[in-house]
Amino acid sequence: MERTRRIRQPPGGSMTLAAPVSLPTLEFWFEFGSNYSYLSVMRIGDLARQRGVTVAWKPFLLGPIFQGFGWNSSPFVLQKEKGIYVWRDMARQCAKYGLPWKQPSQFPRRSVLPVRVALLGAETPWIEAYSQRMMQRNFVEDRDIDAPEAVSEVLADLGLPAQDLLRAAQAEGNKQRLREQTDEARRRGIFGAPTFFVGSEMFWGNDRLDDALDFAVYAPR
Amino acid sequence: MERTRRIRQPPGGSMTLAAPVSLPTLEFWFEFGSNYSYLSVMRIGDLARQRGVTVAWKPFLLGPIFQGFGWNSSPFVLQKEKGIYVWRDMARQCAKYGLPWKQPSQFPRRSVLPVRVALLGAETPWIEAYSQRMMQRNFVEDRDIDAPEAVSEVLADLGLPAQDLLRAAQAEGNKQRLREQTDEARRRGIFGAPTFFVGSEMFWGNDRLDDALDFAVYAPR
Repeated sequence: MERTRRIRQPPGGSMTLAAPVSLPTLEFWFEFGSNYSYLSVMRIGDLARQRGVTVAWKPFLLGPIFQGFGWNSSPFVLQKEKGIYVWRDMARQCAKYGLPWKQPSQFPRRSVLPVRVALLGAETPWIEAYSQRMMQRNFVEDRDIDAPEAVSEVLADLGLPAQDLLRAAQAEGNKQRLREQTDEARRRGIFGAPTFFVGSEMFWGNDRLDDALDFAVYAPR
Repeated sequence: MERTRRIRQPPGGSMTLAAPVSLPTLEFWFEFGSNYSYLSVMRIGDLARQRGVTVAWKPFLLGPIFQGFGWNSSPFVLQKEKGIYVWRDMARQCAKYGLPWKQPSQFPRRSVLPVRVALLGAETPWIEAYSQRMMQRNFVEDRDIDAPEAVSEVLADLGLPAQDLLRAAQAEGNKQRLREQTDEARRRGIFGAPTFFVGSEMFWGNDRLDDALDFAVYAPR
């Protein structure tokens, strides 16, 4: 993102830069079925605002990425030992961040429809609230997120035109855009979610959110 | 670990608790072939001393654990995309912690002999310095760690009787103890390294070292 930036000056002085200054942007690749994406969806908005970083929301589908590795489910399902650990880790991480948590009775939940809607709204002001509500539905309320009724309930709660958005999300052009977004994830080396990018610099996992924000602010551009 | 603890009192007051007070202990399960174990081996001693936590050093072998999952190498080798990411992540993590780093030309390095020696010294005062030197050899100097000459060089540098220790490390009883330690790792659900335990509470990865120490200090015992 580029814009001219007014620089704070000592009293008496004032100046507006005419040249464009690039503001730091963090790409946030996430999935509503991903439990560690839940942590980042709840945290990223406030953390980024505190540091003056713009978040580019990048919803995508993990299923096709995992299928490319020959996996038919989440590694947390396929690798029993890691799966057992992950739910204990999630309970502790949520306690640490002050987030509510309930282990979902279905995992991973199918998320194609809510992700299509997220793609539609990715550059709108409602993407953060929508994503948080969807995540809470999955990981706090333990409710389905993929039925049209589920998605339209969340959209209506936010005062958005649910039926219009559902129709637009299911249009062929938007479905194709999501396939392309997921292809881009694969092409850029994404193998899990959440994943963050600052330019070409990739950070994997909620555990790297702070590092990624620091990088966005402090790395030379 | 139990001992009586002298409690600091206001001036004029002083008291010694006669009842045993249990001091917090953190089990540290690590492997010299594991790059994320390198980070924790370098950090854990100082962090634990600052918080008054005792570290129980638990060297074990990851190879047999991975073989139990049907893997013939590290997941960082078997999963190409994650492997590419991990080396970039390591460079950044080492920069963050102020640790030197060189991506090893062989990965994962065979580590049976140095792990056997570590098991022998796990409850001695030299375990920390020995483990740090072995890790630096692998992840800073990019040198073999499994040859008898490699291990004896590190032991001699520390002023230890290298030949006696190598002989004791290779004795059948010590080999068997390492098999049992690795079996215990599997039985307790360990699927990678480093892994920390506070009682039955398991924490996986260098990213959880601070959480594990906090848990050791603050969780009710």
